[in-house]
Amino acid sequence: MSIARTAGQSGGGKILDDVADLPGAMADMGRRARAAGRSLALADPARKTAALKAAANAIRDSSSAILQANAEDIAAAGDKLTPVFRDRLSLDAKRVAAIADGVDVVAALADPVGTVIAAWERPNGLKIERVRTPLGVIAVIYESRPNVTADAGALGVKAGNAVILRGGSESFHSSRAIHRALVQGLASQDLPVDAIQLVPTRDRAAVGDLLSGLGGTVDVVVPRGGKALVGRVEAEARVPVFAHLEGVCHVYVHAPADLDVAKRIVLNAKMRRTGVCGAAETLLVDRKLAATHLKPLVEMLIAAGCEIRGDEQTRGVDKRVVPATEQDWSTEYLDAILSVKVTDSLQAAIEHVGRYGTHHTDAIVTDDQVAAEKFLSEVDSAIVLHNASTQFADGGEFGFGAEIGIATGRLHARGPVGVEQLCSFKYRVRGTGQTRP
Amino acid sequence: MSIARTAGQSGGGKILDDVADLPGAMADMGRRARAAGRSLALADPARKTAALKAAANAIRDSSSAILQANAEDIAAAGDKLTPVFRDRLSLDAKRVAAIADGVDVVAALADPVGTVIAAWERPNGLKIERVRTPLGVIAVIYESRPNVTADAGALGVKAGNAVILRGGSESFHSSRAIHRALVQGLASQDLPVDAIQLVPTRDRAAVGDLLSGLGGTVDVVVPRGGKALVGRVEAEARVPVFAHLEGVCHVYVHAPADLDVAKRIVLNAKMRRTGVCGAAETLLVDRKLAATHLKPLVEMLIAAGCEIRGDEQTRGVDKRVVPATEQDWSTEYLDAILSVKVTDSLQAAIEHVGRYGTHHTDAIVTDDQVAAEKFLSEVDSAIVLHNASTQFADGGEFGFGAEIGIATGRLHARGPVGVEQLCSFKYRVRGTGQTRP
Repeated sequence: MSIARTAGQSGGGKILDDVADLPGAMADMGRRARAAGRSLALADPARKTAALKAAANAIRDSSSAILQANAEDIAAAGDKLTPVFRDRLSLDAKRVAAIADGVDVVAALADPVGTVIAAWERPNGLKIERVRTPLGVIAVIYESRPNVTADAGALGVKAGNAVILRGGSESFHSSRAIHRALVQGLASQDLPVDAIQLVPTRDRAAVGDLLSGLGGTVDVVVPRGGKALVGRVEAEARVPVFAHLEGVCHVYVHAPADLDVAKRIVLNAKMRRTGVCGAAETLLVDRKLAATHLKPLVEMLIAAGCEIRGDEQTRGVDKRVVPATEQDWSTEYLDAILSVKVTDSLQAAIEHVGRYGTHHTDAIVTDDQVAAEKFLSEVDSAIVLHNASTQFADGGEFGFGAEIGIATGRLHARGPVGVEQLCSFKYRVRGTGQTRP
Repeated sequence: MSIARTAGQSGGGKILDDVADLPGAMADMGRRARAAGRSLALADPARKTAALKAAANAIRDSSSAILQANAEDIAAAGDKLTPVFRDRLSLDAKRVAAIADGVDVVAALADPVGTVIAAWERPNGLKIERVRTPLGVIAVIYESRPNVTADAGALGVKAGNAVILRGGSESFHSSRAIHRALVQGLASQDLPVDAIQLVPTRDRAAVGDLLSGLGGTVDVVVPRGGKALVGRVEAEARVPVFAHLEGVCHVYVHAPADLDVAKRIVLNAKMRRTGVCGAAETLLVDRKLAATHLKPLVEMLIAAGCEIRGDEQTRGVDKRVVPATEQDWSTEYLDAILSVKVTDSLQAAIEHVGRYGTHHTDAIVTDDQVAAEKFLSEVDSAIVLHNASTQFADGGEFGFGAEIGIATGRLHARGPVGVEQLCSFKYRVRGTGQTRP
C-alpha cells in the first residue's frame, strides 16, 4: 500500500514517516494529482464553488479537532519554539474561523477557467480565441503556518488545478486536520479527493522528490516561507517556481514632492507591517530635498520606533542615525530598520534600485509627472508605484481576491499570484472548412 | 581574452574552438547579454525598428560573403550530408534574400514593449496597469538551418531582449556571416552589439553551459530542431524552456460532417507539408461515418501518395491499408504516413487524443456545434480547431507576424511563440498618496 493512496482516500490517513519506497509513493501521488487535475479542469464551476464552501464549513465544524491537532504540534515542538515561531504555528478559535472565511473568499471569486483573454478574426475567416485553462498540478511547499494548507488548496482548486501540499513538520498535525476538512468539501461534490493531497510524511526527502517534478507530473512549485526555504527551492527545483527570494523594496522621494504625502507614504511603506515582503527597506531622498524633507522624514521614523541606517548626509540630520554599510543597501530587514541615502538624481535613484533591489516592489513619491513616468518605465520590478505605499504589493489590494504569494520571476506569473496566474491558456480556433494554402 | 568579448566586439571574430576556460567565457557572455538586454529594454522603438531594417540590408549587402561561408560549411560537411540535411543547410541568393525579407517583416511588427495588457482602478483610487516588458535574455539553440540565426535574433531584439545564439556546428560559418550582418544593424543605431551574440565555438560543452542558465543570466531557452535536440534541452535545462518535443496532431471527423469539407481538411492537414509540427499524424473517424466517409478519405489519401496504417475496420475499406500497431498511435511520422482509426464516440476520440497526443494541435471536423464545443473545451492541447486544418498551427497564420516556434508547455508561452510571448510584464500603479490601512 502506498502512502499516497492512504492519504488520498482518507483525507488524512496514517502518518507514515517511515516509507520503504518514498520516491515511488511520491511518484504515485503525482500521477494521481495529474488525473485529478484533468478531471477538475472539466468540472462545472458551480461544483468547485460548492465544494470550497463545503470545505469552509467543514473547517468550522472541525474547529475543535483542528485545535486539538494544533495543541499536539505545539506540545511536540516543546522548548524549540521561539515566540515568533510559536505565534505563526498557534491556532485559536478565531484563527480557525479566519481560515474558513478565507476559503469562502476564494469560493466566491470568479472562476477563471474558460475566460476568453483575447479574440480576433483572421482575413481567411478563422476566429481565434485565447482562453484560460488550468495550469495542471501545483506543488506548494511551506513552513509552519497551518493556514497555508487551506489558502493554497482552495486557490489551486478554484483555478481547476490539483495541488500537492507539503507543510512544515512542526505544523504537521494541524495541516492534516485542515486538509481533512478540505477533502470533505471535495468529496461532498464528488470532485476527486486527490485534487488536494497532503504529503503524509515528515521525511524531508519528500521535498526533493517534489522539486524533481515527480516524473513530469508537477507543473510548478510554489514555496511559501522564509529565505532559506525559497532559496533551496529555487536552487534545486527542476520545474518552474513562482516565488520571490527577498523584497528589498525602495521608496524614492523626488523633487518636487509634498512633504506630508512623502511622510505618510514612507511611514506606511516601512512601519505598517515590517515583516511583509512589500515593506520598504531603503529610502532614497533626492539631493534637492535634502534640506527640507530629510530631517522631518528621519525624525518621524525614529519617533515611530524605526532604526535609521544612513549615509553621511543622513547621519548629519540626526545623531541617532547609525552609519549604513555597503551591506545595508541590499539587506531585507523585515524589521523596524530602514537604510536611508541621498541620491543625486532620478537616474542615480533608478540605478540604485537596479543594483541593490530585488525586482519586487519600488515606489517614487513626487509631483513631477515626467520623473514619475520615467521611474515607472525604467525600474525593472514586478510592481512599480507612483505616490502610493509599497505595502500595496498584495493580491487582495490588487483586486485578485486572494493570492498564493508574490513572484519576482519573469516567466508566466510576476507580482501577486492569484487564481488567474495559476492558470495556463490555449487557443480555440473556429473555421468553416479553411485549409492552409 | 575571453571568447565572448571577441565575438561581441567584432560581430563574428575568430573561431575559438579551443578555449581554456569555456564556462568562464560563457558566463561572461551571459553577463554581457544581461547588460545589453537592460539597455535594449529601454531603447526607443524606432531605433529597434531601424536597426532591424539595417540588419536586413546588411544581410542583402553581404549576400556573397554569406554564400561563401555557406560553401565552406557544405565543403566541411563533405560526404556526411544526407540530401535532406544538405537542403536544410544550403543557401542560395534567393534564400539569403528571403532571410533578409524575414528580418524586415519582424522590423515592421508592432513593438510589444510597454503595451498595456490590462488596466483597472481600485476603490481606493489606485490605477493599476499591467504592461508588457522584455523577458530579458533568451538562449536559442538550433541545428543546421542558418536562417534561424536571423529569425531568432530579430524576434528577440524586437521584443527588447538580448539573445544568445548557438547554432549547429555544420552551419557554423553561415551563421557567423549572418550574425555579422545583424550586429552591423545594431551598431548602426548605437544599440548594444551584445544584444545578439553568437557562441563562437563549436565545442558542444557550450550547450551545457547555456542550459545551466549561465549563473542566472539566461531567462529562457528555446531549442529549434529535431526531437533529439529538444529532448536533450528539456531534460537538462535548469531554466524554463519554450518548446514542443513532438506534434502528434489529430483530425477527428464526427457525424454529421460534410464529406467534401472533411476531405479538404484531412488532405491539407496531412499532405500540405508532411514535415511540419502541425501536420496531422492520426485520423479518427466516428463510427457513424465509417460506412460513408472512411473509404473516400482513405482512397483520397492513398491517391495523394500517403501510406495508411489503419485499425481493423480501416483495413477493411482498402487492401492497401497496412495494419497499425499500438506504437503507431503515438508516432510523429513527419512523412506521408497517417494512422487511421474508427472511434465509437466523441468521448472516445477525446480520450484517444488525451492518451496518445502531445498537447500540440488537434482538430474536429463536424457540423455538430455541441460536439465541436465539447472537443474545443476538453482537448487539452495548445491549439484546438473546429473545421480547419491543423497546419494553421503557425505564428504567421495566427497573425503574430513571425514566430520562434510552437510551445506545448503550460507556463508563460503556449502555442505559437511570437514577439508578445517573448515578453514578460510588470504592474504600474499610479496613486495620489494612498497608504495601506
